[in-house]
Amino acid sequence: MTLALCPGSFDPVTNGHLDIIERSSTTFDEVLVAVIANPSKEPLFTLDERKDLLEKAVAPFGNVRIDAFEGLLVDFALARGVDVIVKGLRAVSDFDYEMQMAHMNRRLTGIDTFFLPTSHEYSYLAASLVRDVVRLGGDVEGLVPEHVLVAMRERYRR
Amino acid sequence: MTLALCPGSFDPVTNGHLDIIERSSTTFDEVLVAVIANPSKEPLFTLDERKDLLEKAVAPFGNVRIDAFEGLLVDFALARGVDVIVKGLRAVSDFDYEMQMAHMNRRLTGIDTFFLPTSHEYSYLAASLVRDVVRLGGDVEGLVPEHVLVAMRERYRR
Amino acid sequence: MTLALCPGSFDPVTNGHLDIIERSSTTFDEVLVAVIANPSKEPLFTLDERKDLLEKAVAPFGNVRIDAFEGLLVDFALARGVDVIVKGLRAVSDFDYEMQMAHMNRRLTGIDTFFLPTSHEYSYLAASLVRDVVRLGGDVEGLVPEHVLVAMRERYRR
Amino acid sequence: MTLALCPGSFDPVTNGHLDIIERSSTTFDEVLVAVIANPSKEPLFTLDERKDLLEKAVAPFGNVRIDAFEGLLVDFALARGVDVIVKGLRAVSDFDYEMQMAHMNRRLTGIDTFFLPTSHEYSYLAASLVRDVVRLGGDVEGLVPEHVLVAMRERYRR
Amino acid sequence: MTLALCPGSFDPVTNGHLDIIERSSTTFDEVLVAVIANPSKEPLFTLDERKDLLEKAVAPFGNVRIDAFEGLLVDFALARGVDVIVKGLRAVSDFDYEMQMAHMNRRLTGIDTFFLPTSHEYSYLAASLVRDVVRLGGDVEGLVPEHVLVAMRERYRR
Amino acid sequence: MTLALCPGSFDPVTNGHLDIIERSSTTFDEVLVAVIANPSKEPLFTLDERKDLLEKAVAPFGNVRIDAFEGLLVDFALARGVDVIVKGLRAVSDFDYEMQMAHMNRRLTGIDTFFLPTSHEYSYLAASLVRDVVRLGGDVEGLVPEHVLVAMRERYRR
Repeated sequence: MTLALCPGSFDPVTNGHLDIIERSSTTFDEVLVAVIANPSKEPLFTLDERKDLLEKAVAPFGNVRIDAFEGLLVDFALARGVDVIVKGLRAVSDFDYEMQMAHMNRRLTGIDTFFLPTSHEYSYLAASLVRDVVRLGGDVEGLVPEHVLVAMRERYRR
Repeated sequence: MTLALCPGSFDPVTNGHLDIIERSSTTFDEVLVAVIANPSKEPLFTLDERKDLLEKAVAPFGNVRIDAFEGLLVDFALARGVDVIVKGLRAVSDFDYEMQMAHMNRRLTGIDTFFLPTSHEYSYLAASLVRDVVRLGGDVEGLVPEHVLVAMRERYRR
Repeated sequence: MTLALCPGSFDPVTNGHLDIIERSSTTFDEVLVAVIANPSKEPLFTLDERKDLLEKAVAPFGNVRIDAFEGLLVDFALARGVDVIVKGLRAVSDFDYEMQMAHMNRRLTGIDTFFLPTSHEYSYLAASLVRDVVRLGGDVEGLVPEHVLVAMRERYRR
Repeated sequence: MTLALCPGSFDPVTNGHLDIIERSSTTFDEVLVAVIANPSKEPLFTLDERKDLLEKAVAPFGNVRIDAFEGLLVDFALARGVDVIVKGLRAVSDFDYEMQMAHMNRRLTGIDTFFLPTSHEYSYLAASLVRDVVRLGGDVEGLVPEHVLVAMRERYRR
Repeated sequence: MTLALCPGSFDPVTNGHLDIIERSSTTFDEVLVAVIANPSKEPLFTLDERKDLLEKAVAPFGNVRIDAFEGLLVDFALARGVDVIVKGLRAVSDFDYEMQMAHMNRRLTGIDTFFLPTSHEYSYLAASLVRDVVRLGGDVEGLVPEHVLVAMRERYRR
Repeated sequence: MTLALCPGSFDPVTNGHLDIIERSSTTFDEVLVAVIANPSKEPLFTLDERKDLLEKAVAPFGNVRIDAFEGLLVDFALARGVDVIVKGLRAVSDFDYEMQMAHMNRRLTGIDTFFLPTSHEYSYLAASLVRDVVRLGGDVEGLVPEHVLVAMRERYRR
């Protein structure tokens, strides 16, 4: 049995994240989605909200669970018996930072990171861009799940 | 009649910006330079100052107007009847972010972004670098218009 | 009146090329598609075949003409009264080579090159990849026009 | 049971290849190493030689088999019941080409490609560079298995 | 006599920094390591602490001195009679920013910047990553000198 | 005394090459320019012609000598007592290949490669591009020395 870990801030979960989670869930026996409890910037949604939005989004996939972590990702991974980390690769600007993290995580624990190219339609999608667009009143239908769209509009309503 | 939009923070306008604006003005019938009213970081010059410095710099070009916007760039573009957005491409590090914005803007409104390679002599020029150098007492003659140089020195004088 | 030039080998024309040609034709008054007569590698289709496949593909766009050239692109551009060159930018690996060509062409004649980001669905599409896949019996439906698909299959049939 | 495919020319197999194969073999149930029968350039070693050098190199890993293919990689993958393709990512220059292939292969068959960052010590290693160095009399100990070093020296001896 | 300058925040010095300093010291007659007094972010170690950690780390190299500077790097370089600046190049994401700085520094003073590729084992090493890992309780042995490891653990102890 | 080596095909020498050679000659005591005797592609100029064009071009610099080599660059470097290799870095597309060569050369002999950013005006200049433009009748004045221009025009005259 192989357990894959998909880490992220998920503030909020986008269809780009779900693309990677779903494809991971067809390759690996189980997928654990790990929400970073304290991202470096003030999040739009609380940890519980981010987890709830994710729970609803991954409900259709039978072998995906949601959890959260503080501290070092690899400590969490070891504690949960994770076999591999899976991350999406969108564009070349992700490359160096992700390689840096992957090498460090492998050095710390031996756990490998596998990268999956994000699907075309989400290759330039970032949660920060989605937040900016919705905050300024733009439409991101098709880029996030319906229930996330609703939650974002509500959050930005004044 | 084709109306091109050149957006930016212009804090302050550099010769790199003017290079793109001038070349746009020879290709398109009219060029609208749109100053972002509230850039993400505290600007060195106020919106009015940034507009004034620009006005003076583009005076030689007959078909260039200055305006400012808040909110989503493409909402402003639609309201003004803009046909295309034009941006400079300096170095490869601009690439992914600019592609991301161009795809999102096209998705939101159908308005395309055309990229123009910045001229050699400005290919490593950024307003932030110009600010840093002037703040620390360095000389940026030839990188910004003369009146911008004067305004920057005055601003940083203690 | 602004005349834009879209150069290429078009061996054969793909939907990625057509994406750029079509979007150019909505921004500029006229678009001249210029086929490189003698590409560096032995082409799959002759110059006349490549032009014919293009003619058929651009028929729906009213303001697009097909021509061919030998020698320096910018000599051809000057002779035809071209105002700007338009090229697609797919991925970061295109960047340096295209910047090199754009700077040289501007240096030689003053003619500027504008870059348009290729649409998502064609961002990893190259004529060479399409040829390889069809040659090996794979299916590229949706990546080239129907009549190009037919021509390619016929060409590779033994 | 998950079957992973590691394709390549392996002309000859390097320690960089073995790094990816070994790490794949600890994550997936079985690994099939697929040698491209007819690489685009004239190979240094025949197909049988390349397979033999590989066989010997992967002998320590219990769940790795060697095979060869002609034609489309994904046709071979489908015929063998492959679940995922695994490739190493060395440096950023690999990125665009590999993304292009990964997207095309997924489009043709739905089979995903997972990328594994090559270990530090092999991040600038390529079979072509190893061939060049040995041909010119240089020493590549530590970069290829001992038996590959012997075979290369013999091949280049005049 | 050629004097080379290695500038940085050194918060704290890593084995990646020492790799560049040591290799510079074997090529140039003297190496001056210049600590940026006021880095843009709040440093983990004070200026004096950063200098002390460096002093101890470079003690084995006979021709390396430590100093600090405020203001423009090139003003400091001119005042000290520096001939060249030397910087490490790790990954491609360093490239554009470093080129930008190198061009600006040469424009301001004529002083050239030479880049040295960071050794493999440190090619994905950054002081910020080291700080993050130690702060979260991870082990970075082999990535920083022993006395730096001790100082970091003490600093992060609660 | 520090001896720097500037290797290349120099087919023919361009102002971009001379930019790097001249700046190396002001930093290092002596510069040895090493012409690759047998470049991978059929050269436009013979080895002796390439050396002669170089000799004339570097005549103004007092401490630069021209030589040629076959085989491994680092074997030649060791035989000549070279201390460092110096190469120009133009654009990001040079990066990975140059890093690969630098790491291999250091591994083989311990000789380090220092990279110097090419001056702005030559940042998109390549000997191959110069050859293409002259062959097709274009003007490259200012990109190569006058005597190289004459030699190229003569060579391409039919």
